[in-house]
Amino acid sequence: MRKILVIGSGKSTSYLLKYLLDKSVSENLFITIGDLNIDAVKKLIGNHQNAETILLDIFNETLRKNAIKNADIVISMLPASLHIEVAKDCVLFGKNMVTASYISPEIQVLDADVKAKGLVFMNEIGVDPGIDHMSAMQVLDRIRDEGGNVVLFESFTGGLISPESDNNLWNYKFTWNPRNVVIAGQGGAAKFLQEGTYKYIPYHRLFRRTEFLDIDNFGHFEVYANRDSLKYQSVYGLDRVKTLFRGTIRRVGFCRAWNIFVTLGMTDDSYTLDDSENMSYRDFVNAFLPYSPSDSVELKLRHQLKIDQDDIVWEKLVELDIFNAKKPIGLKRATPAQILQKILMDSWTLGQNDKDMIVMYHKFGYEKDGKTYQIDANMVVLGDDQTYTAMAKTVGLPVAMATLAILNGKIITPGVQMPITKEVYNPILKELETFGIQFKEKHVSYLGYNSLNS
Amino acid sequence: MRKILVIGSGKSTSYLLKYLLDKSVSENLFITIGDLNIDAVKKLIGNHQNAETILLDIFNETLRKNAIKNADIVISMLPASLHIEVAKDCVLFGKNMVTASYISPEIQVLDADVKAKGLVFMNEIGVDPGIDHMSAMQVLDRIRDEGGNVVLFESFTGGLISPESDNNLWNYKFTWNPRNVVIAGQGGAAKFLQEGTYKYIPYHRLFRRTEFLDIDNFGHFEVYANRDSLKYQSVYGLDRVKTLFRGTIRRVGFCRAWNIFVTLGMTDDSYTLDDSENMSYRDFVNAFLPYSPSDSVELKLRHQLKIDQDDIVWEKLVELDIFNAKKPIGLKRATPAQILQKILMDSWTLGQNDKDMIVMYHKFGYEKDGKTYQIDANMVVLGDDQTYTAMAKTVGLPVAMATLAILNGKIITPGVQMPITKEVYNPILKELETFGIQFKEKHVSYLGYNSLNS
Repeated sequence: MRKILVIGSGKSTSYLLKYLLDKSVSENLFITIGDLNIDAVKKLIGNHQNAETILLDIFNETLRKNAIKNADIVISMLPASLHIEVAKDCVLFGKNMVTASYISPEIQVLDADVKAKGLVFMNEIGVDPGIDHMSAMQVLDRIRDEGGNVVLFESFTGGLISPESDNNLWNYKFTWNPRNVVIAGQGGAAKFLQEGTYKYIPYHRLFRRTEFLDIDNFGHFEVYANRDSLKYQSVYGLDRVKTLFRGTIRRVGFCRAWNIFVTLGMTDDSYTLDDSENMSYRDFVNAFLPYSPSDSVELKLRHQLKIDQDDIVWEKLVELDIFNAKKPIGLKRATPAQILQKILMDSWTLGQNDKDMIVMYHKFGYEKDGKTYQIDANMVVLGDDQTYTAMAKTVGLPVAMATLAILNGKIITPGVQMPITKEVYNPILKELETFGIQFKEKHVSYLGYNSLNS
Repeated sequence: MRKILVIGSGKSTSYLLKYLLDKSVSENLFITIGDLNIDAVKKLIGNHQNAETILLDIFNETLRKNAIKNADIVISMLPASLHIEVAKDCVLFGKNMVTASYISPEIQVLDADVKAKGLVFMNEIGVDPGIDHMSAMQVLDRIRDEGGNVVLFESFTGGLISPESDNNLWNYKFTWNPRNVVIAGQGGAAKFLQEGTYKYIPYHRLFRRTEFLDIDNFGHFEVYANRDSLKYQSVYGLDRVKTLFRGTIRRVGFCRAWNIFVTLGMTDDSYTLDDSENMSYRDFVNAFLPYSPSDSVELKLRHQLKIDQDDIVWEKLVELDIFNAKKPIGLKRATPAQILQKILMDSWTLGQNDKDMIVMYHKFGYEKDGKTYQIDANMVVLGDDQTYTAMAKTVGLPVAMATLAILNGKIITPGVQMPITKEVYNPILKELETFGIQFKEKHVSYLGYNSLNS
């Protein structure tokens, strides 16, 4: 029996476990899932003979080291900041490791030790990062193998709500960490490359400089820029590309409405409101508006932000009930961002029967024999239910497939790495297709820029 | 002879030295001015027998300690961050000290030692901070002494251009550190208190939430909020005040135009532009606008910021020549704020004959015998020329007066302090009047809030 240790059992473990359990007999696998709270996982594995759960506090060194020592390979589904102790133990005991998280500087530092021991530490192999790397590199490598010269790469991902559950004016619900949605884009100006020119968007303009997308059968989407579009420029071999832009996908109209929160200052996470506990939702809104007792909070907001009374963004605000003078915030010394999150969670928490949707969209522009071409590729994955979500599927399956590939000696190049080589991405992308995770490619004319972009 | 050591000889030393030299014979003073560059000071003191200059590098411990040991009192006109070494030596050698700077945490830490040695360390005794403290406390104490209960305090200061030199569309030139003007308001939301309610303005809205002021014979002004209006709440004894608002004065229209730079992201000082050295002014503007080669930079800016073609803010931008494609920035790896500063310095540097102006405006609201009252007090000081500026006058004279008062035993309470007690502010404010630095008070009806404020 090959022993796989899965540490952490969050929202994205359902498909991961299902895949591994389904293969456990034919592949001779035994899966141990360790977490502080194992009730949910117990339900997922039922009484499968090839799996067990263990109570595991990763801050308990003895328990952690024992569990890792006994495994043949370790999957860490912990929050990104907690991988490092697991990773050090994996180096110590000579175990391969897989995560869906970005390679942190601390993990990168282990590279020499990992290589010295001939280990594979595969990271960034979920959906974003993960499927984005693999699907992008597959097309980029193909273009280059065929003699093309890539001049444009744009890549967008969004965790959204499935069309059948899309029943609010924002066309959005929280399908992943709400906090990350509220503070998205903060920390400095977004930087990207457009036709050879560096462009910069300050945070307070981020949601007003969007790009539109269309996906057959799924309609219109919009994209706001990620903070650092140039992050993978060298890794992807795009040092001489003219346009490089990465972004986050929302339904059209989300960003214009979200910008109201940004403009008012409600997404600020850097200071706390003194009397937040006893404020009403309405008081919270009023804290960002001028003092003028003869005017309503509504009129002050409309006037400050120049919102016409018949503008649909107004309905979006009303839908969130933010003008309610009786709903208490009830959070002590909370930041504006924490309060906004609470207000949004009233409206955007997934219902029992809600299903999520993952959307990914790449644009590849290239030159070949003096002509320019463009390939657009997109992927849409819908969730089955609240356990087997699109997010769990697109994060968990690549992690599981990479784990088995490492166990089976299909991925052997040692080091701290991400899935950007053919030996890694080709078999995994092929297998993902059998689960309905596949890209549709379209050849379009090379635009270079889209004159309709704002 | 009483020996006064002045360390640092920046723009605001002219009046300071003139005052001390004028008193040097009658008061038996000898003034030593130490700096790395003493050419300008030499001109100021001429061949006055009661003054000398010394070459002083404050990082040279021996020189610094010798100079301080030989003095009876030390005035530090160094940049605020450099006071601390001087202050430590003053403690060591038992010398009193005067600065016009905010009390830093490092200086505050010396309080116990300063008191133990019976020394007076007077700080924040320039114009802002300085005259603002003294003039505000004088009225606040008077109101309270007469049984009034202060419910509102607003205080505004601006370093501006004298009406006779006010010849550009912004009604502004750099009369002080340009860098501080460019990055003013950054570092977090502005917080203040209005009629018992905390109000917050994010940086990107700061210049759109202004308050208007009128001053007889000087016309209209506007005010944007300082970051922390509540800084002196306790110090001024205003813990139960309903409205507390501090701000910076500009001519009406400045803030709306300045907001264009903020909105575009040009005041950001947190990252550098890769190719800033070879960019033109026009390239710099274009870096913050969408890519669209079929449109002009001008039209893209107008469209992004919804600026009508006949809007006066447009003329303000044109006046700065920011659309010039031939003017190179010429700064290596500069931040947007550094580049903007360079562009502005082309237009806003004081000319040979330009004169500056300091404007200060306080509002005091109070209750007495069941009725509400308001006193508005303002001060306008005009510069004489480029050496004897209003800034030098309003910073230098209070410093000089405090120095002499300490030497003469008129200010004796030991400790690290600022000028908020009657023993300090009454004689200094009275003497300042003889130099034309005086407040005009007006009794107005208590508004509580100004319904015309945006």
